[in-house]
Amino acid sequence: MAHLMSTSCSIKISSSYRPFGQPLSEDRTVLPNSFTIKTSKSPFKRLISKGHRAGRSCGVLATAASVSKEVSANPRSGSDRSPNDSSKPQRVMVIGGDGYCGWATALHLSNKGYEVAIVDSLVRRLFDHQLGLDSLTPISSIHNRLRCWKAITGKTIELYIGDICDFEFLSETFNSFEPDAVVHFGEQRSAPYSMIDRSRAVFTQKNNVIGTLNVLFAIKEFREECHLVKLGTMGEYGTPNIDIEEGYITISHNGRTDTLPYPKQASSFYHLSKVHDSNNIAFTCKAWGIRATDLNQGVVYGVKTDETSMHEQLYNRLDYDGVFGTALNRFCVQAAVGHPLTVYGKGGQTRGYLDIRDTVQCVELAIANPAKPGEFRVFNQFTEQFSVNELAALVTKAGQKLGLDVQTISVPNLRVEAEEHYYNAKHTKLIELGLKPHLLSDSLLDSLLNFAIEFKDRIDTKQIMPSVSWKKIGVTPQTVPAN
Amino acid sequence: MAHLMSTSCSIKISSSYRPFGQPLSEDRTVLPNSFTIKTSKSPFKRLISKGHRAGRSCGVLATAASVSKEVSANPRSGSDRSPNDSSKPQRVMVIGGDGYCGWATALHLSNKGYEVAIVDSLVRRLFDHQLGLDSLTPISSIHNRLRCWKAITGKTIELYIGDICDFEFLSETFNSFEPDAVVHFGEQRSAPYSMIDRSRAVFTQKNNVIGTLNVLFAIKEFREECHLVKLGTMGEYGTPNIDIEEGYITISHNGRTDTLPYPKQASSFYHLSKVHDSNNIAFTCKAWGIRATDLNQGVVYGVKTDETSMHEQLYNRLDYDGVFGTALNRFCVQAAVGHPLTVYGKGGQTRGYLDIRDTVQCVELAIANPAKPGEFRVFNQFTEQFSVNELAALVTKAGQKLGLDVQTISVPNLRVEAEEHYYNAKHTKLIELGLKPHLLSDSLLDSLLNFAIEFKDRIDTKQIMPSVSWKKIGVTPQTVPAN
Repeated sequence: MAHLMSTSCSIKISSSYRPFGQPLSEDRTVLPNSFTIKTSKSPFKRLISKGHRAGRSCGVLATAASVSKEVSANPRSGSDRSPNDSSKPQRVMVIGGDGYCGWATALHLSNKGYEVAIVDSLVRRLFDHQLGLDSLTPISSIHNRLRCWKAITGKTIELYIGDICDFEFLSETFNSFEPDAVVHFGEQRSAPYSMIDRSRAVFTQKNNVIGTLNVLFAIKEFREECHLVKLGTMGEYGTPNIDIEEGYITISHNGRTDTLPYPKQASSFYHLSKVHDSNNIAFTCKAWGIRATDLNQGVVYGVKTDETSMHEQLYNRLDYDGVFGTALNRFCVQAAVGHPLTVYGKGGQTRGYLDIRDTVQCVELAIANPAKPGEFRVFNQFTEQFSVNELAALVTKAGQKLGLDVQTISVPNLRVEAEEHYYNAKHTKLIELGLKPHLLSDSLLDSLLNFAIEFKDRIDTKQIMPSVSWKKIGVTPQTVPAN
Repeated sequence: MAHLMSTSCSIKISSSYRPFGQPLSEDRTVLPNSFTIKTSKSPFKRLISKGHRAGRSCGVLATAASVSKEVSANPRSGSDRSPNDSSKPQRVMVIGGDGYCGWATALHLSNKGYEVAIVDSLVRRLFDHQLGLDSLTPISSIHNRLRCWKAITGKTIELYIGDICDFEFLSETFNSFEPDAVVHFGEQRSAPYSMIDRSRAVFTQKNNVIGTLNVLFAIKEFREECHLVKLGTMGEYGTPNIDIEEGYITISHNGRTDTLPYPKQASSFYHLSKVHDSNNIAFTCKAWGIRATDLNQGVVYGVKTDETSMHEQLYNRLDYDGVFGTALNRFCVQAAVGHPLTVYGKGGQTRGYLDIRDTVQCVELAIANPAKPGEFRVFNQFTEQFSVNELAALVTKAGQKLGLDVQTISVPNLRVEAEEHYYNAKHTKLIELGLKPHLLSDSLLDSLLNFAIEFKDRIDTKQIMPSVSWKKIGVTPQTVPAN
């Protein structure tokens, strides 16, 4: 991953600036009256300054900024945080904060009164270009997103663009921002992507493992009290024939007993990279006293949170393609466009799922209740279990209510996974911390389906079918064909 | 790791050449009368040819070649292999074949009638230069080693010098040599090395994980029937409070039962890299039908095998320093030089140990009895358990018999590990395949101590003490100080 740019960019907008929360005439170009670039002690300072002088470093909002009807008159302020949490982390670095979960999380935390910085190389956007894919929703540049957020809420989110595999860059971000907590979404997160070809398999493991090692070293070196909140995946556990516990299992064997890390059986180079991360983090908790929470997240669905709904420039990405799209989101897009729901194989594959509004809630709970020094804490982050067939049935029913003709087809499963299996995973620890789940409901499915219908014209049906085979992965570099 | 050179170099020596097995006058320069370089289809062919023309590609034996009294008159031929094994692998690639275990294994397999190729980047020799360390035994260049082996036994071991993290190089070796089995020792193998600084931690994980991924892809792409024999480590398991099984454990939990990968608790970035490897290999066995044996090896001691004893140019390396030296070998060298035996902490650390003559035997057994396609087989490769205190007592007793005054001191333990713990690890699978262990005996200790005494003048006592702290590892590049 290329090192792109290293900067701390906060925009201060004068009071005469018209916030997005107020009506604007159509197609009106919005220019901040003044803004300040806070550069870090980066070796790239000269580059940044040049960009600034050329008016490009943080850009300007040159696109139409239509009014979002969902914006509340007064965006919530930091006073939302409970009054007795003065000792809790204030400064949160969200690595991968331009991605699907990261963006929603960064806005949520900013809205809740945390000081937030996004660290991102933006390489996820490059993947789309390289593979010929695109989000269903048109998403703004990260610079415009942050300007819009500032304009609407008055809150600044700092931005550091660069690759955390570059330790010099990562050091800069730590020393400049001084985080109390790091939320680490900054990994290649698609199983099919990791199975396209050898170079992407190697990239995924190198990028994810080295990036996380660097974060651990940065915490040890610069911010030893900093709490690492790391996104893992429920896919680390595989589908064992016994109940899945939260990170650890007590085993009695030959008359003796110990509580040990729960055995992992990951089923793609991506999922394996998360297992590697978990093992590395556990070691540093023990050896260095790092405080870490591993959030083994299930499959996330939904697209809107309170914050991303405030304005279309804050909209989150919605992936429906065969590489980055995940089950429920993809089904809703398929239903909207009249494409049969694509069930891989027998459809008995059962996983944990959660609403993206619960993703942001879980991360906030983890930050607000940090792990102790030396503790490697594992939470299973999902709210409900579904099989693929169950999801297809739910989407079919919801689609029919909206007058859609929803069909389902079984397509050959290009993955290597059990299609009928036992699955029972525990997920009580986040509930105990206060998680109020948004369970999958008719209204959510309505909303998702209507969202997909709204952007129907943007759907490229050639992206829908799976094209990456677990068994056929080879050593020749591949581009996913447009079909 | 730099890509050094890519070649298949086999030396054919004419019949007029004087084998090492026959007396030579002292200091006589030995030159082969003719030799042939078999180049692969390497992109580096031109470079290799230049080296060849300059007479450097395979060098010449310019050092004194004194007679080893241990050489048998007729080195054993391939007829040693049992007659009914025509279906068994014939061509074995030993990755890391210039290292401590790899060199002994390559010679052993060649002696037993296998066609052997060594693949090695020689970076282990570079580590010594960079850290100011050296083997107790003077070791010949890999080129001289192989010429000597050819001269003594008539057997050719092919040589490919390069980095397996370079997939183009690795592909060349596979397509040129066409291995039936790959024995993979080609990893950074020192826990302290991986804990020197951030860059060596990252190097260790990147080098080991990516190298192994490349080997898996090469097998899938070029030699799908090839059996991978991968060196893991007993250190992957850590020190759980229950019995350690061989790779898997059957767990009954909440009324259900499954056999799952044994939980891992590695305690250095090196040991973690082996855990990552094991997880990656297990997945490819399942997804691609790779056949693999993971040899979770204990601590190896000893220096001589039947083959390395044949001539001093075949001598194996013997590391006694604080970075690469392991417990028993280091104690013998300490006893020989009159340095107190350095017990780290309380000395209750218990591990599995084995004689290097059993390492080579185990690898041969694994190759001769390959895993089935799709099978990920795990053997615990050690023969006896000892605590550090027990080893110190054994060396003290053996030293006293030789008239040495052996003292023991406890030095602060710079590692993070339990110093008193339960330890009971199973190791029956290799016994079942026919392993005849060389248990630690007075005669072996005598031999090791005498060997150390023979090379006493080469000992640099400044290398002996541990200098790498698990807790103090930082981000600044370090050179281990000469003290």
